[in-house]
Amino acid sequence: MEDFSRREFLQKTAVGAAAVSIAANQSGARQAQPAVQPPPTKQLGYAIVGIGRLSIDSILPALTTTKSSRLTALVSGHPDKAQHFAQLYGVPEKNIYNYQNFDRIASNPDVDVVYVVLPNSMHPEYTIRAAQAGKHVLCEKPMCTSVADAQFMIEACRKAGKQLMVAYRLHYEKYTIEAIERARTKIGKIGMFDAEMTFVIGDPTQWRLDRTLAGGGCMMDIGIYCLNGARYIIGEEPVSVFAQSWSYDPAKFKEGVEQNISFVLKFPSGAVANCFASYGAAGMNRYRAAGPGGWVEMDPSFTAKANLILRYTEDGRVVTAPASTVDQFETEIDAFSDAILQGIPNPSPGEEGLRDTRIQMACYESAFTGKVVSLITN
Amino acid sequence: MEDFSRREFLQKTAVGAAAVSIAANQSGARQAQPAVQPPPTKQLGYAIVGIGRLSIDSILPALTTTKSSRLTALVSGHPDKAQHFAQLYGVPEKNIYNYQNFDRIASNPDVDVVYVVLPNSMHPEYTIRAAQAGKHVLCEKPMCTSVADAQFMIEACRKAGKQLMVAYRLHYEKYTIEAIERARTKIGKIGMFDAEMTFVIGDPTQWRLDRTLAGGGCMMDIGIYCLNGARYIIGEEPVSVFAQSWSYDPAKFKEGVEQNISFVLKFPSGAVANCFASYGAAGMNRYRAAGPGGWVEMDPSFTAKANLILRYTEDGRVVTAPASTVDQFETEIDAFSDAILQGIPNPSPGEEGLRDTRIQMACYESAFTGKVVSLITN
Amino acid sequence: MEDFSRREFLQKTAVGAAAVSIAANQSGARQAQPAVQPPPTKQLGYAIVGIGRLSIDSILPALTTTKSSRLTALVSGHPDKAQHFAQLYGVPEKNIYNYQNFDRIASNPDVDVVYVVLPNSMHPEYTIRAAQAGKHVLCEKPMCTSVADAQFMIEACRKAGKQLMVAYRLHYEKYTIEAIERARTKIGKIGMFDAEMTFVIGDPTQWRLDRTLAGGGCMMDIGIYCLNGARYIIGEEPVSVFAQSWSYDPAKFKEGVEQNISFVLKFPSGAVANCFASYGAAGMNRYRAAGPGGWVEMDPSFTAKANLILRYTEDGRVVTAPASTVDQFETEIDAFSDAILQGIPNPSPGEEGLRDTRIQMACYESAFTGKVVSLITN
Amino acid sequence: MEDFSRREFLQKTAVGAAAVSIAANQSGARQAQPAVQPPPTKQLGYAIVGIGRLSIDSILPALTTTKSSRLTALVSGHPDKAQHFAQLYGVPEKNIYNYQNFDRIASNPDVDVVYVVLPNSMHPEYTIRAAQAGKHVLCEKPMCTSVADAQFMIEACRKAGKQLMVAYRLHYEKYTIEAIERARTKIGKIGMFDAEMTFVIGDPTQWRLDRTLAGGGCMMDIGIYCLNGARYIIGEEPVSVFAQSWSYDPAKFKEGVEQNISFVLKFPSGAVANCFASYGAAGMNRYRAAGPGGWVEMDPSFTAKANLILRYTEDGRVVTAPASTVDQFETEIDAFSDAILQGIPNPSPGEEGLRDTRIQMACYESAFTGKVVSLITN
Repeated sequence: MEDFSRREFLQKTAVGAAAVSIAANQSGARQAQPAVQPPPTKQLGYAIVGIGRLSIDSILPALTTTKSSRLTALVSGHPDKAQHFAQLYGVPEKNIYNYQNFDRIASNPDVDVVYVVLPNSMHPEYTIRAAQAGKHVLCEKPMCTSVADAQFMIEACRKAGKQLMVAYRLHYEKYTIEAIERARTKIGKIGMFDAEMTFVIGDPTQWRLDRTLAGGGCMMDIGIYCLNGARYIIGEEPVSVFAQSWSYDPAKFKEGVEQNISFVLKFPSGAVANCFASYGAAGMNRYRAAGPGGWVEMDPSFTAKANLILRYTEDGRVVTAPASTVDQFETEIDAFSDAILQGIPNPSPGEEGLRDTRIQMACYESAFTGKVVSLITN
Repeated sequence: MEDFSRREFLQKTAVGAAAVSIAANQSGARQAQPAVQPPPTKQLGYAIVGIGRLSIDSILPALTTTKSSRLTALVSGHPDKAQHFAQLYGVPEKNIYNYQNFDRIASNPDVDVVYVVLPNSMHPEYTIRAAQAGKHVLCEKPMCTSVADAQFMIEACRKAGKQLMVAYRLHYEKYTIEAIERARTKIGKIGMFDAEMTFVIGDPTQWRLDRTLAGGGCMMDIGIYCLNGARYIIGEEPVSVFAQSWSYDPAKFKEGVEQNISFVLKFPSGAVANCFASYGAAGMNRYRAAGPGGWVEMDPSFTAKANLILRYTEDGRVVTAPASTVDQFETEIDAFSDAILQGIPNPSPGEEGLRDTRIQMACYESAFTGKVVSLITN
Repeated sequence: MEDFSRREFLQKTAVGAAAVSIAANQSGARQAQPAVQPPPTKQLGYAIVGIGRLSIDSILPALTTTKSSRLTALVSGHPDKAQHFAQLYGVPEKNIYNYQNFDRIASNPDVDVVYVVLPNSMHPEYTIRAAQAGKHVLCEKPMCTSVADAQFMIEACRKAGKQLMVAYRLHYEKYTIEAIERARTKIGKIGMFDAEMTFVIGDPTQWRLDRTLAGGGCMMDIGIYCLNGARYIIGEEPVSVFAQSWSYDPAKFKEGVEQNISFVLKFPSGAVANCFASYGAAGMNRYRAAGPGGWVEMDPSFTAKANLILRYTEDGRVVTAPASTVDQFETEIDAFSDAILQGIPNPSPGEEGLRDTRIQMACYESAFTGKVVSLITN
Repeated sequence: MEDFSRREFLQKTAVGAAAVSIAANQSGARQAQPAVQPPPTKQLGYAIVGIGRLSIDSILPALTTTKSSRLTALVSGHPDKAQHFAQLYGVPEKNIYNYQNFDRIASNPDVDVVYVVLPNSMHPEYTIRAAQAGKHVLCEKPMCTSVADAQFMIEACRKAGKQLMVAYRLHYEKYTIEAIERARTKIGKIGMFDAEMTFVIGDPTQWRLDRTLAGGGCMMDIGIYCLNGARYIIGEEPVSVFAQSWSYDPAKFKEGVEQNISFVLKFPSGAVANCFASYGAAGMNRYRAAGPGGWVEMDPSFTAKANLILRYTEDGRVVTAPASTVDQFETEIDAFSDAILQGIPNPSPGEEGLRDTRIQMACYESAFTGKVVSLITN
């Protein structure tokens, strides 16, 4: 229902008063009511590259409620789809691009940021083309599928003088941030961290099961949640990893596309993270960090839809925070815009993505060799 | 990430292949990919009357994903607000109305349905004006604040040959429907139903605390959830009610605007519903129905945001369904459009609203007299 | 495993050291290790009257761990049963009584307290006989089945100069006590209290379904939990009650033995308690009190087995205390003994039982007349 | 309350009828009422060796409700303690032994089984002495602290022609058994198993922190739950293990007594178990097994107190079984007695303990060398 004050009510019913018997004190005074906050003086314009489920379900809707960001362009290989969503969200015809004419975006002043929402192995190309077109880049995670690509991407943005942010939306999620804070202040020495991210993958023809597009199997796409979560919550860089990967269905999971992976990270302080990702286990996504002062847990922890639940111990009791109703993409996108507008570095730059990529590659090495892989660099 | 097949990937990277070293098998074949379902041949156009929190947070966003319904007009007393949301959701300038010129909507072919999202006591006026303008009406609940108004509203729509639906969104919510089904098939004779809907109300100047606008206190605005839930789940019409209402803060809760109400409904089969609504108790919304075969519960049960949780017993164990992620307004609005398009009655017509209004009035009578009030009519 | 210090270990292995190769530093010094706390200087002796499920499953075991109480006598109509449990719990042959020779207990110095664990309507006889035999009395709840009986019981104990305590074990249960404390300090004005206690009753020949023995139906045996809980948590005496009772199966639930009862209590502060008891709904036992500062809940709340769970809100989050592992009977029995030993009144004397009995009778009156019954006395 | 039939009631009140006005139909007929099941024709007699917390809190009480087992002797180094509990549980003076005269138990026909409840490294000595005394042996877990000891224990019992059972009480726990069944029938290929067992250890002088008595740190005492759980739920023998152990407090956790351990087991089918045990993290005990068909979880999973909770997915919903109220020790002890009485092997013999001991030792090897240790034997 509309947020009415009594005076507004009286104004509104002034005309219709005869229609039904509502007692109304007629009032002639009319005032402009600034009931909607004026938009910020500056909203950055976003071009979304790739109109798949993530864009349709989450990113485009989020851009109707962002504060310092708004949708201004769409980039897609499907003209119909682009047309449909341009109309629904008020994107002008001229701001629709395809993969061929994408580079022309350089001359479009409506676009400040390019958000790359493509299969993993396409991230480098579009990040680099966007940077070369003079745009800031928000790149979905995993950042890419090799350490070299990550370095190229960072370098391209650096050269262009543009910001690069990897879309680690959980870095901007209030419960995850609180979990980290609690881990540091209440738990004491974290002994254990464990995390799982799993689902049973469907359609065998999807890009996630294509090594060329995905860069691997479940480690790339969902294992990264456990990995990044472990580093983020523990607040240290791991010194070694031991990983084991396997598949039960070789017809569906081709060479280099693991169905399951278990990996164990060792941290300098002593903490160990036991992680598990799978395309073959029923949907789970959760983590828990525990130490002498208790534990903190999120379950679900990694989904984009806004029902993350934070639980933790306090004085031996379990506290459950209400399911989050915050739109994670709105928060993430505005955080990037705000960093750009304020001219300060964003909190999850390319270097953060590079660190995960490097460890993902080390997991593959460990799984291949059967040996513990050191992550210490000189 | 976009839902790519391998072929699409190859097409898309064809142009950008030089930019970064991604192995790409160039393919010249290009095909239109109907990846977005074509919209239904007919989408009904909706005019939203009242742009308050409910419209902004829930109804306008829902209309971007409805199948047989779309937003085509806005009616508001705030030109700025109307302008802002018209732009964001692509409503043409000409389809913005205010409360004075609202009746001109009669001649606008873009509008099939008027959705009344105003304070309770304004529902009759705008429902009747909309019907007289030849539009179907979706009216927020409570339908109105007196039995006579409900009857006028029903009559006006009947005369106009237009459908009237009361926006009982839970009648269209999958878990609520399942709860009813379970209550009927698994629980056996329902002995007990209990329900609570409470929150601590803030701003003392809001319309909910103005008897002229709200028609009463918490019974009108949130007690209706417990009441409608009891009737809906038990599947019978109550034969008597005993209610007690009271307030702790007479400065905030004026005469006729109860802060708290407890009401007990007796049903023909014997079942009793214990209900409680409050503007003075911390946020709760839940119900449970129990009988020899177990119980079924929803907690939260009444909120519009999509995290309703269904729990029930089965073989002595408790089954918890995953938190709902369905948009309740999308479902409700499309259900109305579908009924209109198919020329069949909608499931929650004015008569359903009238029944609740009548019992709400009986609650007030019981609370006033201190006696049990019969609901049996001859 | 035994709580060993290293020294003890060495002592113990001194002899067996040759048997297996455990390095052991032989030590000749042997010391009395007061590892078990010496029993308190005084433990009161208890005679249990009635060896049914409650005694067998809960009360007899509890008396092996009580601090200021111990089992010294058994009273039963079944000699075999009495024999069996006397042997298992070390009760001497001479301290076994039956219902005929029970009064001889007067001359038995081993017995300080008689714990009456019989069907409801037998409580008065055995309470009075016990008091006349010069023993303190712990009487199971409900105290009795009429106001007059309650008064006789109180009077008999008063005349004998002996304490009478009604076995409201939840008055001694830590989470219930915390719930009360929270209700008073954190919730603010309690608006709503609701409670349910239900189970599907089995054997139709049991005494609970015999009006002569039980004094009524579910109101007597389990409704009392909701009733006492409401008074205890809210901390006031109700001013009126409205009750409705009914049965679905007249063959099983004879006249005067209600299967279901709903009752609504009104309290002086304004608070309302919605309560429900049933022999025909699947097992539930829970309550919740809510006010502006949040809510406190126990679910399960009333069972004797030690898994009560306390939940409450704090800063908008839900705190769950670990399931209680405290033996409720142990706590209750020792609380009575301690009161006697210290010569102070016990916290749940006959007067407390009388209050509940009076309200139980008023519930029956309301259910019979269909009217609200005042509980105000002059 | 005693389980009364109406006739019993009448009998009982016959004598006391004059005392209070209870209508009673006098009945002269008296019948022996076999209301307690006659004990089984044969109950095996148990000697408990070691009267520490586990014995006091769990094992002695359990022996008052066991069906085919009863307490007949106590073995302790503390005469006072032995005296106290002998009296409380009706153990005759002559059946109290100390560690010196323990071997005389050979000639005591009251004792069929010796239950060894001592620090880990004392298990071999007392198991072997008991077997040599001609008694069956129930030995607490971990069975012992070296593979050689386990073999000696098995051999000693074999030579004596007596059964040896390791007290894996969860092998006899209904929810654990159901979890296994569900894992095999519903989950499909188990991908992931994870388990944690942790608590913050207190008193630094306790035997658990003494390498000589405990045989190691948390791996021995609580890691065994995760290890045995993994093998038991997955139903296979692991082929390799990778373990990492560490301590934060070297003053408290001496050389060879790890505070924390993480170990990862690989199984022939591909499944991986991530396990974590700690004396330095707040109390957790849980496990989950997941595969394409869903997951099954217990949390808490390992505690002796009877509140284990089983949860699992079914059709995408989570089913929660009511907290177990079964006494795990009662079940375990009777299972051993029944096996002996029926002359069939018990389900958790010495060989089962040996398997865990061997893997525990491999964990230590892996943690020491930093390498994966193969568990494959030829």
